[in-house]
Formats: sequence, C-alpha cells, structure tokens
Amino acid sequence: MKLLDTFNTEPHITFEQQNKVGILLMNLGTPERPTPESLSPYLRRFLSDRRVVELPGFLWKPLLRFAVIPLRAKHVAENYGRVWLNEGSPLKVFTERQCEGLRQRLPDNIYIEYAMSYSEPFASQALAKLKANGVGRVLVLPLYPQYAASSTGAAVDKVLNVLLKQRNQMSLRTVSRFYDHEGYIKALAAQIRNYRAEHGAGEMLMFSFHGIPQMQHDKGDPYPHECRKTAQLVAAELGLGEQDYTVSFQSQFGKGKWLKPSTQDLFVSLPKKDKIKKLDVVCPGFVSDCLETMEEIAIAGREEFFANGGEQFHYIPCLNDHPLWLDALADLAKDNLQSWVSYSL
Amino acid sequence: MKLLDTFNTEPHITFEQQNKVGILLMNLGTPERPTPESLSPYLRRFLSDRRVVELPGFLWKPLLRFAVIPLRAKHVAENYGRVWLNEGSPLKVFTERQCEGLRQRLPDNIYIEYAMSYSEPFASQALAKLKANGVGRVLVLPLYPQYAASSTGAAVDKVLNVLLKQRNQMSLRTVSRFYDHEGYIKALAAQIRNYRAEHGAGEMLMFSFHGIPQMQHDKGDPYPHECRKTAQLVAAELGLGEQDYTVSFQSQFGKGKWLKPSTQDLFVSLPKKDKIKKLDVVCPGFVSDCLETMEEIAIAGREEFFANGGEQFHYIPCLNDHPLWLDALADLAKDNLQSWVSYSL
Repeated sequence: MKLLDTFNTEPHITFEQQNKVGILLMNLGTPERPTPESLSPYLRRFLSDRRVVELPGFLWKPLLRFAVIPLRAKHVAENYGRVWLNEGSPLKVFTERQCEGLRQRLPDNIYIEYAMSYSEPFASQALAKLKANGVGRVLVLPLYPQYAASSTGAAVDKVLNVLLKQRNQMSLRTVSRFYDHEGYIKALAAQIRNYRAEHGAGEMLMFSFHGIPQMQHDKGDPYPHECRKTAQLVAAELGLGEQDYTVSFQSQFGKGKWLKPSTQDLFVSLPKKDKIKKLDVVCPGFVSDCLETMEEIAIAGREEFFANGGEQFHYIPCLNDHPLWLDALADLAKDNLQSWVSYSL
Repeated sequence: MKLLDTFNTEPHITFEQQNKVGILLMNLGTPERPTPESLSPYLRRFLSDRRVVELPGFLWKPLLRFAVIPLRAKHVAENYGRVWLNEGSPLKVFTERQCEGLRQRLPDNIYIEYAMSYSEPFASQALAKLKANGVGRVLVLPLYPQYAASSTGAAVDKVLNVLLKQRNQMSLRTVSRFYDHEGYIKALAAQIRNYRAEHGAGEMLMFSFHGIPQMQHDKGDPYPHECRKTAQLVAAELGLGEQDYTVSFQSQFGKGKWLKPSTQDLFVSLPKKDKIKKLDVVCPGFVSDCLETMEEIAIAGREEFFANGGEQFHYIPCLNDHPLWLDALADLAKDNLQSWVSYSL
C-alpha cells in the first residue's frame, strides 16, 4: 500500500554524513517591495498567525481579508516607501548583514542561514538549505532579545512545524531570549553613548519596545518584565538615574488594551505635560531598523513630538551591523553550540 | 472580545523566576497492567501515530479499532503477563531507575522527569511538572540510541506539540541519537563481556534491533546504518571478528517488507543451516528490558531457536540500571547542558 506523504522523503544519508552544525537566525519578515500588492500576502500571513491575533478564525479571517488588509495595505506600503533602502527592505538588508557578520566570526564549517516568520526565506526553505549542506544539528536564534509569544514563540513555532514533517529530524537547540546578555547590553550602551556624544544628549532617554495586547501578558507572557530589565541594565551601564529614562510600548494595533505606557501617548504628554522638550529614543527590542523604528518612531514619532511642543528629537538607530553587536551575537551562538562544536572556536 | 484558548494560560512569572534547567527522558510507553483492557488504549495511541503506521487514517483507523486491537490486545496482554515484575511494567520500572540514577549523578537544581510517547506520564504532564518547578530550559533525551522517525522522531514530536501550545515557550535542546557515544558503547561492551565471562560465550553474538518498514528507510530514515555502526563499535571494543557477530531486526508487524535480516528468521536458519548451536543475543536498541526483549527474544526467541536445533541460548539483558550506563547517560546530559549550566558539574 502506498505510504502517505505526511513526512518528507529525504536523500539517503547517514548521520556521519549529516552531522554538521548550523545556525538559523529568525526575524519577522518584510514585503518584497513597498507596494500594496506585495504588502497584502505579507500582512495576511502575519495577521493570520494565532500567536499574533488570538481571535477565532471564523470571525477574524473575513474581517482580515475584506477590511483590514484592503484598508491597510496601501497606507502601510506608503510608509514602507519612506524607509526603503537602495539595497531593499531595511529589515532584510540588516538581517543579511548580521548573517554575514556571524559567518565572518564563526568557523567555515558552521552553516548559517536566516529565515523570516512571514516572508521568504521561510523556515522550511532555510532548513532545507541547511540540510542540503549536511546539517543535522541546528541552533535556532530568533533575533528578538525579549521573549514574546507573538514574536519569539511564533518564530520558533515555524521551525517546530518543519521538524514535525522531517523524516530524518534534526537535533534542535533554541534560544528564547537574550534580554540580559552582557554583550548585547554593552553593545546597546555603546551605541547610545556614542550617539549622544556626537549629537548631544536629550533631557530624557526613551526605551521604546514593540507592544503586545495586555491580555497576552495577563495570560502569562513575561514580555514586559524582560523589556524593563533590558532598559534597567542599559541605564545602569550608562550611569543613568531613574528620572533620566523611561520605558514605553509602541505599535498598538486594534481596539483592545495594550501594554502601557504607550510610546505614542508619551510623544504627546512628554513635551506637553512633563516639559521634556529634548528627547532621545532607542528601540532595543529591534536589533534591526525597520518600518517600526524608521517610520513609526523616527518619522511619525518625531512629527508628533514636535506638534506637541517638542524641540529636539534624536532617534538612535538599532544595533544593525554594529561590530560590538555582531560580536555579542557570535558569543551567544558559540555559547549555545558548546558540545556540538568540539574544536576551539 | 474573549481570546481563544489556543495557548496555555500560565502563572505570571518572569524568566528570572523560571530559568531553571530540566531534563526530560522519553521512552515508548507501556500499559498500566498486563490486561486487554489496559492494552487497548495503549495500542490505540501507539498504532494511531502517523510516525509509526504511515497509512491513510480513513483506511487504517477502522481496521485498527475493529480488527487489530481486538485481535491483538488479549494476546499481547498474555505476553506482558509473562514478563511483568513485582514492581510493575519492566519498561516503566527501569525508566524510573534511570531517572533516579541521573538525579543522583547531577546537581539537585537540575530537575529530571521522564515521559512516555504513548502512556502516562505524557510529555504534556512531565513538561507541566518541570514548568511548575521553574524550568524554562529543557533538554529532551529520548532513550533511543539509534534514531528512527518512528521512535525518536515520534517522541520529540510529542514535546514539539506541547511547545506549540505554550504561551511562555521553554527553550529546547534535543538529542536525536547517541548510537556511537563512547560511554554507551563501553557500557554495552562491559555488559556483554561480564555476562559471557559468567555464563560462557556462545558461537555467535547476535545484535538484535527493533525493525522498521523497509519503505521508511527507503524514504530517508537512516536507522539501519546507525544500528550497524553501534554493533560494529561494540564488536571492536570486544575484539570480535566479522564472523563472530551478526546484526538483525526484530518485531516485524503487518504484511509489508521490513528491514532484513529478520531476527525471527535467523532463529530458524542459524541452528538449521549455519550450524550455530550456541547463540548469545543482545538488544542494544533498547536501553531497558521490556516486552520486546524479555518475551519476544528471551522467551519466544529461545523456544524458536531450540525448536530448530539450537542447544544454548543466552539472552544478555539490556543496560537497564547498569552503573556504567547511568554514568554514560549523565555524561550525555552534562555535555548537552553546557552553557545552560555554568557551575562546574
């Protein structure tokens, strides 16, 4: 009787031929081009993920298809147009540089690929590529320093779903968080210190993280604690007091309650109520600049801050391909490869 | 709007409170009692797993329910009755001792549980217990030295499916195989050497592994290579020549083609055709004695061998709670815990 194709058919290889070590970096994703046509499938994948929008499919899917995507695709495409780089989508460009930076810092026989949760290369494609190179043991490193079910969890899910289909299943290691990793904290502090030394420091430093619905936190997602801890560690490294910095959450979507305080609310109240006229903003939850930092903060946020009486607004770029950050990423990888990689790194 | 219960609601804990390290040993499972009533749900779970029987559900499920289980449960229950220990099911008794042996060999702050693929404690139960103890990082160690999709893959799947439901997803490490692990090979060699020194050596040593359908191997499952490699390494450790040992595959189920040579066929042909009258059998694919070794080999196999002219049949027990094996298991765990456990082990 014919077997089902539940599991992948794979080349006939022993573990001795297939015991190489690989690393899979993972990030959110991006449209291919800053156009509504390219945005629609990307938004559909992203907003159909149960980790992201926890609503019953029969209610949410028609709403998504007939209202949310048609209404948002054009607007979001315009926003992408404002931040698009010559080389392409910022998130993709920086993720590729991080991949390359890691390759330069690790031995050649460690295969390194990246995948996106909601755009190509998908986890299935990147893992197939690693497998074709003889990788039987893979370290999955989502590029989210703070764990959230809707970012890290969703990224790891994509890998788990591929493994559930593999006949010759890879050994797996995952890193769920690195919000307090020494190298990451020091790289952030250096980035902020250098930026302020060059451009002058504002009266306050804002750490703006992507938000999550309050209900996801209420049900057990530890995300806001890890964000606050990152901010606290970086502030300590910079010698800042409690009055010198603030933590907030951006990118609220939909009508529900999200984590507070909202970054957008603070762009209004800080200059208006608290008389903070000179603000520095950094987004340590993103390791690569992208729509959420370059458009939402550096363009729209600045406008909002100025419209409410702000006088100086410095957006401090993400770590991107900062050498200290690439060193930290390599250290994080080496640490988690111990015993898989026995030669000296 | 009410959220779906797609993901577990979990206590409100930060990673700092939840960063403990755990180990989950996994094995196949066992009925609670050697009775047809207890066998039925166990066999149903086992034989419904797509990793085990790759047939379309609409064909297989009715066959399983109305023919296979009713026909087999009584017979298998009788077989279990023959090997049942005072303390209970052999597989469960030995797995618990391995768990305990590992606890004695590792620091107290590493939490160790075991789970079964097809009987309690399920992976969901064991992982919930680990989580309740503050474990946020878990090493999954299936007790199958050689990788097969239908044993190791199926066990890891159970864990992946739990993680897909966790809101606060644990970091994961898996060990897919240890067929060539030095400690495991040395423990096996010691077990065989000591047994033969005490009881006398036969004319041939048979390494009998659980079989898989030939088609699963054809589609890419590397299992038989790893079995042969284990046998070769143990034989080398014992100083055996090629004529001194043989590798075979037992426990064929159903009418399809399975890996060859079949252990059961050899119990006929070895004494009859090849004039091997004194046989030693060891089952290195099982680390715990169970129905497949104690009944299928040590009782039924012996009868078959004698019925065909055999004169001496020594079944060499599995590693069970052999101290060298428990040491090897602890080494395997320590190796894979590197960087998660920073103090000296």
